[in-house]
Amino acid sequence: MYAYEQHRDSLMARLKRIEGQIKGIMKMVDDGRYCPDILQQISALTGAMDEVSLILLESHLSGCVTDAIQTQNGEASIQEVMHIIRKVVKR
Amino acid sequence: MYAYEQHRDSLMARLKRIEGQIKGIMKMVDDGRYCPDILQQISALTGAMDEVSLILLESHLSGCVTDAIQTQNGEASIQEVMHIIRKVVKR
Amino acid sequence: MYAYEQHRDSLMARLKRIEGQIKGIMKMVDDGRYCPDILQQISALTGAMDEVSLILLESHLSGCVTDAIQTQNGEASIQEVMHIIRKVVKR
Amino acid sequence: MYAYEQHRDSLMARLKRIEGQIKGIMKMVDDGRYCPDILQQISALTGAMDEVSLILLESHLSGCVTDAIQTQNGEASIQEVMHIIRKVVKR
Repeated sequence: MYAYEQHRDSLMARLKRIEGQIKGIMKMVDDGRYCPDILQQISALTGAMDEVSLILLESHLSGCVTDAIQTQNGEASIQEVMHIIRKVVKR
Repeated sequence: MYAYEQHRDSLMARLKRIEGQIKGIMKMVDDGRYCPDILQQISALTGAMDEVSLILLESHLSGCVTDAIQTQNGEASIQEVMHIIRKVVKR
Repeated sequence: MYAYEQHRDSLMARLKRIEGQIKGIMKMVDDGRYCPDILQQISALTGAMDEVSLILLESHLSGCVTDAIQTQNGEASIQEVMHIIRKVVKR
Repeated sequence: MYAYEQHRDSLMARLKRIEGQIKGIMKMVDDGRYCPDILQQISALTGAMDEVSLILLESHLSGCVTDAIQTQNGEASIQEVMHIIRKVVKR
């Protein structure tokens, strides 16, 4: 069983909505819509994607990282999660 | 004609690739893949989306904002672009 | 005369406050304060620094970039500002 | 003893350098230096501040959060760290 099991349906619903947003953005570009309107939609999509990342990150801390800390010292697991957090922060 | 006309094909190709990335992420969640691997893919998608934003922003500055500056004082256009840049920076 | 002349006093006041924030953070680290409290203060400082960046960026667009567009085609100036915006977005 | 004890000297050295950077930025504004040059320096400062945040965050995970997970279920501690990570990501 994986850490985000209990959030799977909510994550899939969010990702489905993001897939709709990306299709909407493609249509806007194809229709030659006004740049700031498209940028606004991209910003909404990035925000929605950040929420998915934060849910996964929290699940990972409560699941795998917690397990690693309880069964070993957890150091490797913390290194791995810091590597990911750095990527999210630095984009 | 819109500002990003000359970049339209490249933008559509990037967005098509991002649509593929989002589908890949949905499959990873559905398959119960390891959180850090999914987060890595989300980070790649966000990075790819940032590139689309930067291309659109540059097109907007070279197109609409430049036109507004040449034909009026451009102040309203600069306010609008700052509003967008703030959204991109603050996510 | 430089573009942010009219915002100089406000910028200096903001920077003075940020200097105070950094001194406060140093004291927190020195006193061994609780990590999340320090991280909260760093986040406030980064937010305050972002505001300074956005004021300077807007001044630059209204000043130098506008001048460059009115007197030449402005392309080099837009390239330069995009380079900076990329750095701000990507941190 | 606090979590970042072993990194205290390195953190203080980094913060001292950042204090120097902020003074340098104040001088640049006071001297009316070119906006993109100032923005470049602010971007370097924000990057340096991010590094401090990431060191503190890692210390916090290896210290307090690990302790909380080993002695209790750690859930409150993970909620708290997620709140901080959200602030860092969203600036």
